[in-house]
Amino acid sequence: MLIKQLHEIRRSDRNVRDKGWESSRLLLAEDGMGFSFHITTLEAGGEWTFHYQHHLEAVFVLSGEGSVEDLATGERHELRPGTLYALDQHDRHTLRAGTKLVTACVFNPPVTGDEVHDETGAYRPAVLPA
Amino acid sequence: MLIKQLHEIRRSDRNVRDKGWESSRLLLAEDGMGFSFHITTLEAGGEWTFHYQHHLEAVFVLSGEGSVEDLATGERHELRPGTLYALDQHDRHTLRAGTKLVTACVFNPPVTGDEVHDETGAYRPAVLPA
Repeated sequence: MLIKQLHEIRRSDRNVRDKGWESSRLLLAEDGMGFSFHITTLEAGGEWTFHYQHHLEAVFVLSGEGSVEDLATGERHELRPGTLYALDQHDRHTLRAGTKLVTACVFNPPVTGDEVHDETGAYRPAVLPA
Repeated sequence: MLIKQLHEIRRSDRNVRDKGWESSRLLLAEDGMGFSFHITTLEAGGEWTFHYQHHLEAVFVLSGEGSVEDLATGERHELRPGTLYALDQHDRHTLRAGTKLVTACVFNPPVTGDEVHDETGAYRPAVLPA
């Protein structure tokens, strides 16, 4: 059994900050669960375009409000506590935080922690230990 | 892109109640994400022994307090908001809710929605569509 504490992850190298967002990776590939689990906080007023070509991701909104736009269809969905969106088609999307947004995110395959968002908004493919 | 609303799931057949707990399955196997995602609420004072022999599960505490006991080692871990436990060894465990507990749960492989907890505390294996 693994036990992780968010307040400890926040002080560790599993806490990643980038432009207007912060992600605390409670579970990564090395934990062997077959998915990763992150608490991600997005600053009010922010807008980000992501395209996870190598991962499926689900995002559940814990607090705050915003929207997610599916860039293939132009559809825009409101986000509020209790909304989940799932990028089941590796959907390229724009996320907007009207207020500070706190989310729980699950990635399959799991993020290793070594990825960076590249110029297309993707995480580079995870290189798993052999 | 899939959009799910917790308040809608709660009124659907993806909402399951059993002895002292209620699970709202926002993502199931049929959603094609490779994991399932549930918001599970456990009643104050409850105690449950589970043994997911066929699944790995991670549980993140959103609100409330309780404990989880690893029945292989006897270790008991306090649960509070921000704690995650992961059953990476299919760990047989006893979950106790000191107060009402609200959790986000991820299962790999994904729950299909047709499982039941059997007499050993396991979910029977998911039978996935061919």
